[in-house]
Amino acid sequence: MERMKSRPKDRWHGKDGRAANKAAPGRRPQHGTLPEARAVYGLHAAEAALANPKRKIRHAYLTENAAAKLGAAVAGRGIASSLLTPPELDALLGRDAVHQGAVLDAEPLAQPGLDEFLDGLPEGEPAALAMLDQVTDPHNVGAVLRSAAAFGIAALIVQDRHSPPLTGTLAKAASGAAEHVPIISTVNLARALERLKEHGFECIGFDSDAEEQFSTVDAVAARTVFVFGAEDKGLRRLVREGCDALYALSAPGKIKSLNISNAAAIVFYEAAKAHCAG
Amino acid sequence: MERMKSRPKDRWHGKDGRAANKAAPGRRPQHGTLPEARAVYGLHAAEAALANPKRKIRHAYLTENAAAKLGAAVAGRGIASSLLTPPELDALLGRDAVHQGAVLDAEPLAQPGLDEFLDGLPEGEPAALAMLDQVTDPHNVGAVLRSAAAFGIAALIVQDRHSPPLTGTLAKAASGAAEHVPIISTVNLARALERLKEHGFECIGFDSDAEEQFSTVDAVAARTVFVFGAEDKGLRRLVREGCDALYALSAPGKIKSLNISNAAAIVFYEAAKAHCAG
Repeated sequence: MERMKSRPKDRWHGKDGRAANKAAPGRRPQHGTLPEARAVYGLHAAEAALANPKRKIRHAYLTENAAAKLGAAVAGRGIASSLLTPPELDALLGRDAVHQGAVLDAEPLAQPGLDEFLDGLPEGEPAALAMLDQVTDPHNVGAVLRSAAAFGIAALIVQDRHSPPLTGTLAKAASGAAEHVPIISTVNLARALERLKEHGFECIGFDSDAEEQFSTVDAVAARTVFVFGAEDKGLRRLVREGCDALYALSAPGKIKSLNISNAAAIVFYEAAKAHCAG
Repeated sequence: MERMKSRPKDRWHGKDGRAANKAAPGRRPQHGTLPEARAVYGLHAAEAALANPKRKIRHAYLTENAAAKLGAAVAGRGIASSLLTPPELDALLGRDAVHQGAVLDAEPLAQPGLDEFLDGLPEGEPAALAMLDQVTDPHNVGAVLRSAAAFGIAALIVQDRHSPPLTGTLAKAASGAAEHVPIISTVNLARALERLKEHGFECIGFDSDAEEQFSTVDAVAARTVFVFGAEDKGLRRLVREGCDALYALSAPGKIKSLNISNAAAIVFYEAAKAHCAG
């Protein structure tokens, strides 16, 4: 592991803010500001990425503290690395980000398409999935992914447009879950629901206007997809109409709307309980 | 509502970064960078603060869009206000913050002490409370507060040290819930648990090492306090020992630890269900 000698502003940024990627080739990796799509940061996210043999990692940038925790995993995979100070890592990410001393230059994970995923699912095998309809905040999508991994949700389905990149902020909020739960991007969510029904999935949507409360549900189908909308807009019409059933999550208190990741955590927990009981 | 005429950097900040609070007195409010302890921002948080007669608000800083939504409430309370641009609001907050065009200069809400709160609780009245043991991230505390308001948790108890200010980031994440759920700061959480027991509360702690799973609990005492530790450190020994029972939140998947606000949401939801059923 080499210590960076030059000051980050010389190394990574030209005076005009563009990346200065003109370092002599072959001597060390070239460090322009890492784009969101290539950065995996945060101790848990970096640790999980290092433990995932399918994650291609080009370089590890670590503080001394983070190197004490992750250095063995980095060396074990033969990944080139540099020791940096926290401000140097700030500069590398080019923005405020809670990197906890660990930043990986990594490629986004290859993700399956919906058909590929469904074809790979053994016939009759139970599975719970989640679908997010235009949830754009990467913190929220990452937090949903973390709960999905915790409660055995097999995949997250999102629309390819209106979804944040699967790295950076999302991966940090997912706290390692991005390595475990595939994220299936699809052009049209209503059509995806049709495909899921053909494979025996019951499509359960959540809508604050729904008449039935989710808390009254005491059984979840062996194959279920839970469909959540954005906090402000809810489910779009075609997605809502594509659901087999709609439920509200009862909030008896003075605030009626739940944060999307909290709503999803409750649903995944209940589903896991129902599956264990069933 | 007056439009700010001077450029924010002249108005709010001296060249050396200190607030320039030397404007002629009586002409307009003085706008130095708002400290975290006095800022309430975000549309939901500002709207709820404006609707709370107990919240003292000195000044409202709004973009034109936010003024279209909140202007009537501001005028209805006779609160002085200024129209600002989004970058001017950024400068007012002095840091990256998702203000959504609405920033209030407000005083922190007066919060009850533990004895005052308990004395005000009618004898025999059921109540669910939550306690956070050194959860320091204001996003997390705010998100817990939001779920608390959604599921009728009567108060949140925190240690006075090691807790974030009850405004700013916390109030934004709480999405208005800071107006509804009192936050009781106390010097010693273990002693607070003793006081709660004297008032008939059962103290339920969450600990990843606990042998019993929370999902097996099918009844919650009429008076219960749910006790959560920080994600990395868990409950401190004296707090853990002060609990009547310890449960783990089962996460059968590949990630074992839940985000604190997601864990709390699940517990509050289950408790509300148990109370409704009971």
